[in-house]
Amino acid sequence: MRILVTNCNTTEAMTKEIEAGARAAASPGTEILARTPAWGPESAEGWLDSFLSAAAVLDLLRRTEEPFDAVVLAGFGEHGREGARELLDVPVVDITEAAAHLASLLGRRYGVVTTLDRTCGLIEDSLRTAGLADHCVAVVGTGLGVLELRDEGRTEAAMLTAARRVRDAGAEVLVLGCAGMTGLDRRLSAALGVPVVDGVAAAVRLAESLVALGLTTSRAGSYATPLPKRRRWQPPG
Amino acid sequence: MRILVTNCNTTEAMTKEIEAGARAAASPGTEILARTPAWGPESAEGWLDSFLSAAAVLDLLRRTEEPFDAVVLAGFGEHGREGARELLDVPVVDITEAAAHLASLLGRRYGVVTTLDRTCGLIEDSLRTAGLADHCVAVVGTGLGVLELRDEGRTEAAMLTAARRVRDAGAEVLVLGCAGMTGLDRRLSAALGVPVVDGVAAAVRLAESLVALGLTTSRAGSYATPLPKRRRWQPPG
Amino acid sequence: MRILVTNCNTTEAMTKEIEAGARAAASPGTEILARTPAWGPESAEGWLDSFLSAAAVLDLLRRTEEPFDAVVLAGFGEHGREGARELLDVPVVDITEAAAHLASLLGRRYGVVTTLDRTCGLIEDSLRTAGLADHCVAVVGTGLGVLELRDEGRTEAAMLTAARRVRDAGAEVLVLGCAGMTGLDRRLSAALGVPVVDGVAAAVRLAESLVALGLTTSRAGSYATPLPKRRRWQPPG
Amino acid sequence: MRILVTNCNTTEAMTKEIEAGARAAASPGTEILARTPAWGPESAEGWLDSFLSAAAVLDLLRRTEEPFDAVVLAGFGEHGREGARELLDVPVVDITEAAAHLASLLGRRYGVVTTLDRTCGLIEDSLRTAGLADHCVAVVGTGLGVLELRDEGRTEAAMLTAARRVRDAGAEVLVLGCAGMTGLDRRLSAALGVPVVDGVAAAVRLAESLVALGLTTSRAGSYATPLPKRRRWQPPG
Amino acid sequence: MRILVTNCNTTEAMTKEIEAGARAAASPGTEILARTPAWGPESAEGWLDSFLSAAAVLDLLRRTEEPFDAVVLAGFGEHGREGARELLDVPVVDITEAAAHLASLLGRRYGVVTTLDRTCGLIEDSLRTAGLADHCVAVVGTGLGVLELRDEGRTEAAMLTAARRVRDAGAEVLVLGCAGMTGLDRRLSAALGVPVVDGVAAAVRLAESLVALGLTTSRAGSYATPLPKRRRWQPPG
Amino acid sequence: MRILVTNCNTTEAMTKEIEAGARAAASPGTEILARTPAWGPESAEGWLDSFLSAAAVLDLLRRTEEPFDAVVLAGFGEHGREGARELLDVPVVDITEAAAHLASLLGRRYGVVTTLDRTCGLIEDSLRTAGLADHCVAVVGTGLGVLELRDEGRTEAAMLTAARRVRDAGAEVLVLGCAGMTGLDRRLSAALGVPVVDGVAAAVRLAESLVALGLTTSRAGSYATPLPKRRRWQPPG
Repeated sequence: MRILVTNCNTTEAMTKEIEAGARAAASPGTEILARTPAWGPESAEGWLDSFLSAAAVLDLLRRTEEPFDAVVLAGFGEHGREGARELLDVPVVDITEAAAHLASLLGRRYGVVTTLDRTCGLIEDSLRTAGLADHCVAVVGTGLGVLELRDEGRTEAAMLTAARRVRDAGAEVLVLGCAGMTGLDRRLSAALGVPVVDGVAAAVRLAESLVALGLTTSRAGSYATPLPKRRRWQPPG
Repeated sequence: MRILVTNCNTTEAMTKEIEAGARAAASPGTEILARTPAWGPESAEGWLDSFLSAAAVLDLLRRTEEPFDAVVLAGFGEHGREGARELLDVPVVDITEAAAHLASLLGRRYGVVTTLDRTCGLIEDSLRTAGLADHCVAVVGTGLGVLELRDEGRTEAAMLTAARRVRDAGAEVLVLGCAGMTGLDRRLSAALGVPVVDGVAAAVRLAESLVALGLTTSRAGSYATPLPKRRRWQPPG
Repeated sequence: MRILVTNCNTTEAMTKEIEAGARAAASPGTEILARTPAWGPESAEGWLDSFLSAAAVLDLLRRTEEPFDAVVLAGFGEHGREGARELLDVPVVDITEAAAHLASLLGRRYGVVTTLDRTCGLIEDSLRTAGLADHCVAVVGTGLGVLELRDEGRTEAAMLTAARRVRDAGAEVLVLGCAGMTGLDRRLSAALGVPVVDGVAAAVRLAESLVALGLTTSRAGSYATPLPKRRRWQPPG
Repeated sequence: MRILVTNCNTTEAMTKEIEAGARAAASPGTEILARTPAWGPESAEGWLDSFLSAAAVLDLLRRTEEPFDAVVLAGFGEHGREGARELLDVPVVDITEAAAHLASLLGRRYGVVTTLDRTCGLIEDSLRTAGLADHCVAVVGTGLGVLELRDEGRTEAAMLTAARRVRDAGAEVLVLGCAGMTGLDRRLSAALGVPVVDGVAAAVRLAESLVALGLTTSRAGSYATPLPKRRRWQPPG
Repeated sequence: MRILVTNCNTTEAMTKEIEAGARAAASPGTEILARTPAWGPESAEGWLDSFLSAAAVLDLLRRTEEPFDAVVLAGFGEHGREGARELLDVPVVDITEAAAHLASLLGRRYGVVTTLDRTCGLIEDSLRTAGLADHCVAVVGTGLGVLELRDEGRTEAAMLTAARRVRDAGAEVLVLGCAGMTGLDRRLSAALGVPVVDGVAAAVRLAESLVALGLTTSRAGSYATPLPKRRRWQPPG
Repeated sequence: MRILVTNCNTTEAMTKEIEAGARAAASPGTEILARTPAWGPESAEGWLDSFLSAAAVLDLLRRTEEPFDAVVLAGFGEHGREGARELLDVPVVDITEAAAHLASLLGRRYGVVTTLDRTCGLIEDSLRTAGLADHCVAVVGTGLGVLELRDEGRTEAAMLTAARRVRDAGAEVLVLGCAGMTGLDRRLSAALGVPVVDGVAAAVRLAESLVALGLTTSRAGSYATPLPKRRRWQPPG
């Protein structure tokens, strides 16, 4: 089985991190095809970036020529999943919902810890439109500015602080609200004594499950095949 | 006061229709600047189109050099409004929420009639993330295929049928769930004896109100100015 | 266009304040007709006052002989709006819902700051039945007793404290939960760096918009014309 | 124990009906004091009537000089209960919520059948602000005009039709959404094979229970004693 | 009238406490029949215990040979009520919902104080499936371990602390989230100045009310009589 | 990896069916250990059966001596999952939630088709407490009596009718609301052109995923290890 994993930004280094995480989570025999969009933001932090990213990822999906059996969209809280479901005949799993699905099986309530505060609303909306907001008690950011995020030790300490706030809000399980932070899930889990779910790992396993069970996106209603028409994917000239 | 009104698709004829509707609704002294995205889908029907449209409209907004005092996003149910709010210092009004806001003032419950059934979910999600779903009893499409929509009489008859279903579901006010159908609001209203709200007209008036009251998007929290970074708006080369 | 603005209590001085606020917000050419109920409470603080006020305001509306094109009900959180919609053929806008509608366009979540704590529940119920509670994160009072409210400096300081609590609860926009405090919206906005919406100003603009677009209350269903019958508006004798 | 039961309209004959129903439901030793407001609508059908009724009933309550141990507000769906709770030191039970409370103990979902369609929204709002809407599957009116209601046989037949619609919507228990229709609950129950709850009977029993257990309205927060101030209960002169 | 009151655990001493509370709350002429399950947990603290308790209580109910007119299930937050409704032809009142019903009549919002933190989720789910969660602002435990609960003074002090947290969360009425703590309701009420509802007392009065009004569980839909079949209530041999 | 799959009733033939379905869905290398409770109902149809089943299945789990890596609870809509999570250190997946999780990835809304109408409420409550009700548009039974279910052809025809109702209510994906009907998912899917999810298959794959990712139930909060105490699992003597 071959799973296409798409980064949501143009930073190759993050694609590599995601690829490593996906590989570590995959079953034996599953091939991971990690791809970076040719355009879009270098990191996705907020709605402007998220909409730009969604278009760029959809462009990547329609251009990908290698065959694949499922897609994992590796942008936490980012837009695009419904469009990918229309576009493709294979199952599509977004890491945001994937993490929430598995977290829901591990405790009565879960919460999300993420990096920048400005993405919290984006994540909340994504969980709500996925029908998974009911058991989410909090989405908490680190309060760090973007430059501060470059200091890895500081970021991790701030993520731990955010994680404690989420737990105090009633979360019995944590979801790691960002892709490409390999190993952080285990460190937070060890420090706090609660399960921590990484979205990329969760999504890879869910994608495998759907493929194995012969299930794919319904074409009845919302996610019917896109109507054939002229779509310009970039400015003319 | 000058209001920039953006079509969500690349079809100039629809921009003209929207422009006419906006002008008819505007106060004396308000100038309407209607613009068509340089890229994107020729019509927005579903999530794939909507995400492509969102990126193209945001690209249009960042490139627009004429000054303007407010923006009206004239794509019913389409994505992008939160990104526009981050990007711009002037108020941004989406026709989906605008119509719902005014409809809420006119009756205890409202409903939406739209063209293709496949966009109903998109509209429902848009109303829900705008916090306006509580009083919406139904979003109903015509059940017509896209080719059939070209037959104007048939479309109007089908819209009337859909409007009756919405009313029977408890709607006391109707929202016209598509842009660029000048006059249809009045004809449906006359036929059914209930108010019918057109989103473009509603949004123009709401945008004027915000400007007149000196109100614009909050920068505290979700809609902070986008972080400066490299964003590629199209494939390289 | 002429807009009738009704105070919810019998205190003329407050009617004057409201009138001034309404005039400042109105478009050129809009005439403001501010009126005080002939009976009711001298201030509306709680349900008992609110129901008494609702009847007195409805009595005022049915007795008003001058023609008017729309009504603004200037009692924040007070009852009566649905009755006015049944009674009148012109649009009716309540300042509670008006402020919430505009606030929803300016940020992802809003909150309300008001004077007495005892009115918070009343305001919450009003927003909920208006279908606007979903994006309201908090309604917070000053915690001051009614006598303390007479000290203007103290009240304003307490409102600022309440406003900070609302913002910390996640509000990106504030709504001023009381009529007749001209200028407070601007001072809070300057102090906290977020938009602050005044209900009277918002309602005047929304009423103008509905009139300009030829929209008025639906007669289908809830707000049908009241049935003719004997109604005694005061005790006999 | 003495329970004051207030009709919501000025029609003495209905007060008599309500009184008979209350007496039939009361425990031995409970005295029923049925009272008619001195002013207000001759019947309450919609928001205008309901707000007028609320003020008139509150006026009745504050003027009542006989001692009483609890109050039953016998207007189905009508406003006023929160004001009565502020005003009085004894427990206050509204027949709308009373019926819903008992109905919730008898089946997984309940529904309401009422007379005029125009009161359905009023009842829905009343149940929602009472926190009891979650298990209510439908509020259905007879669709009869007010003149047709005078034909008793026709009304009862129409109520039966409405009751069938409520049951088909999933109600396992019915609530009779009007006061003063003695015996109709038993006839509907016999015809449909489901329990039918009458609000007056339910409220009398709940009021007795609260008194017996020494429980009365909380003064902490919403329902604090009204502030002393000038309140005019009728026009001057 | 005879009411069967079932303890949810096998501890006779707690049955005695519950019996005393039930007797104190009952009307003259009501006979209380308190019973202890023959098997199950010695105390119910969490889901495992709750499911075991539910089966044991249902077994007790089906084996009880004395006639009774209603049942009170005296396990706060415990499972089983829907099964008892299927099984029996008389009304069934669970103390969890009973307390919430009466509390809803006494203030705008209520909260629950209980012993062990681990039961909070169980109570929340019980209120939610009973349709009563909407007005519940918090369910708070003492934070004490089970051994610490044996120290009565310490427990009561911790319950008072929990009660203050519930009140600060906006509760105007408290519900005592455990059976068999006679007198604690009055002491908490005196200390905090808010009504405190005891579930056993509330349930006894509600059961009496249903019997007096001739109301019992609906057989239409969810709570139809159980299908005849082989059910083994214990391991073979 | 070894997964323990528990039937919820005492009918061995159904355990065999479930076992076959679990084996067909499992990855190579996963061993399925299917077990039947030693006591309980011969089929679970309603709350009485469900609570009896829950206790019997928990008894089975605590007595099982073979080691296992995860548990699948194969009773659709039945109680017990939270108790199993307290009891065991390995992940526990209930087929109700499992099916809903996968269905949510395949379409915007899903619905459930089941056998007896009386279990619909049970399934709705189970989805709601699992936080998965938001995207479920309907739970529909066949309307057949229990004897009629023995006619397999008739049952399948009735399930198809129910499935059409679910689809017409807006479901884009169907969930098969009963265990042990191997092959029915594929036949319904073929007939209706939408994905149909079988809970046993979904749960086996989800259980494998959790084990592979090293995730298990959180012990923080709700699902802490049960307190040591005397629990009697059957009547004495």
